[in-house]
Amino acid sequence: MLRVTIEAMGPQAPTGDMPKPAIPGVQNLIAVGSGKGGVGKTTVAVNLAISLARMGHKVGLMDADVYGPNVPLMMGVRATPHAIGERIQPIEKYGVRIMSMGFLNPGDKPLIWRGPMLHSVIQQFLRNVDWGEVDYLIIDLPPGTGDVQLTLIQSAPLTGSIVVTTPSDVSLEDARKAVHMFLQVRVPILGIVENMSYLTCPHCSERIDVFSHGGGRKTAETMNVHFLGELPLDPDVRIGGDTGKPVALADSEGFVAIACEVIARSAEVRGGRGPRIDIED
Amino acid sequence: MLRVTIEAMGPQAPTGDMPKPAIPGVQNLIAVGSGKGGVGKTTVAVNLAISLARMGHKVGLMDADVYGPNVPLMMGVRATPHAIGERIQPIEKYGVRIMSMGFLNPGDKPLIWRGPMLHSVIQQFLRNVDWGEVDYLIIDLPPGTGDVQLTLIQSAPLTGSIVVTTPSDVSLEDARKAVHMFLQVRVPILGIVENMSYLTCPHCSERIDVFSHGGGRKTAETMNVHFLGELPLDPDVRIGGDTGKPVALADSEGFVAIACEVIARSAEVRGGRGPRIDIED
Repeated sequence: MLRVTIEAMGPQAPTGDMPKPAIPGVQNLIAVGSGKGGVGKTTVAVNLAISLARMGHKVGLMDADVYGPNVPLMMGVRATPHAIGERIQPIEKYGVRIMSMGFLNPGDKPLIWRGPMLHSVIQQFLRNVDWGEVDYLIIDLPPGTGDVQLTLIQSAPLTGSIVVTTPSDVSLEDARKAVHMFLQVRVPILGIVENMSYLTCPHCSERIDVFSHGGGRKTAETMNVHFLGELPLDPDVRIGGDTGKPVALADSEGFVAIACEVIARSAEVRGGRGPRIDIED
Repeated sequence: MLRVTIEAMGPQAPTGDMPKPAIPGVQNLIAVGSGKGGVGKTTVAVNLAISLARMGHKVGLMDADVYGPNVPLMMGVRATPHAIGERIQPIEKYGVRIMSMGFLNPGDKPLIWRGPMLHSVIQQFLRNVDWGEVDYLIIDLPPGTGDVQLTLIQSAPLTGSIVVTTPSDVSLEDARKAVHMFLQVRVPILGIVENMSYLTCPHCSERIDVFSHGGGRKTAETMNVHFLGELPLDPDVRIGGDTGKPVALADSEGFVAIACEVIARSAEVRGGRGPRIDIED
């Protein structure tokens, strides 16, 4: 009976060979993903975008987490995008051009959509938004390895991807799945970020490894991908997100370092010196 | 152009009126959900199941998070279920009968599936697993308001649901969406759990509100649903999950309290004294 169950699911390996037309004006298209939710994927995407913008780059931020679009809250922006001709205009905040489902479906009503409807909105976000000339278009993926991720990474000409994890074993278990997903569909992995690495007690300044520590770097080494850096579990980062004033606005050291790594790794990929990708099946 | 975009998505309100045949032998079917991932949904599901079992109830735990099935790791069990006749046998650990995609797809390879395949496996988990006589079958939903959640809550005869959140505004934003989702499909909400409420520094014993505090209770009051309790951000809880020895094995006070609330609220719902559900559209 179990055999029948598995057969009913069928083999699902995506080919990764769909055509991926370039997005005019976009130099680097970078997806930020995670196996597990709540690890700080959107926090990394938002602060990375702001850090890049503060370095003088032209930056776009596409919130592809259509079910839980937290980018507007974290960027402190509520607005209704309008269109010029056929092109939806992104909303600019902190020097970053933003598009999010949260702009189109504000409030608390959930979107209960099935796959095909997601594909349509993701494609529109990618191709019908007037991103203009941008050096980096950061895509905040939904967590996991589901429909949206698959559609996006199969149809978008991604320069590379970033996998965010916490150091907990549970999070790392899912992060490894995300790395495998990107490898399977032949998207270069710029590297792994370990978020919530440790907490410094605001009272006694002692270090607390709330979610363990070091697993991100170890996983990167084991899987032969770059380690982009670790970020502390800093209540200020959470407050920055909750109040719409991300910490990167004040040149947060950790995020600047990660932005520099992302710039370097993206240049490597474009120059054909990216990490060799082997597909094992 | 924007108008066209929105029309292309169409109205998506599920009806909630699909037939929901009972699952023979299952007294209470309870879904644990969250808007956002990483808030401790699986931690709550696992420790709730163990707490109920330690109180003498017969308990099943169905891991419906097919993309990130963390239940086997958290319960410390790796096994291959076998079938007797047409029925898949759950794996028993700590007095809880468990079924998880992690048993069928162990290791790091992700499942990159689209909606319809998920629906099939969820239905098999619900109806082809030999749950036997159980007082409580706890379903660990994937985070969010997507395909799997919709299929499951439309087709399963749920007694009620639990929404897990952290106190951060970003998490609460998504938790409100999850509450609305359950309301829309007419599933009684047993209540909201606030997880990672606060951290007690292991060095100086001072309290740290890492993810803010109190938003879960406030949200429950505002939305007129029960508040089931708050759980601290306790490194021991994370360690318990990472090592497969959940804290509830030692009668964790917080989880026992939540288990008692769940028992009471489920009895209310079964007795027709559950929270009145109004659909607003």
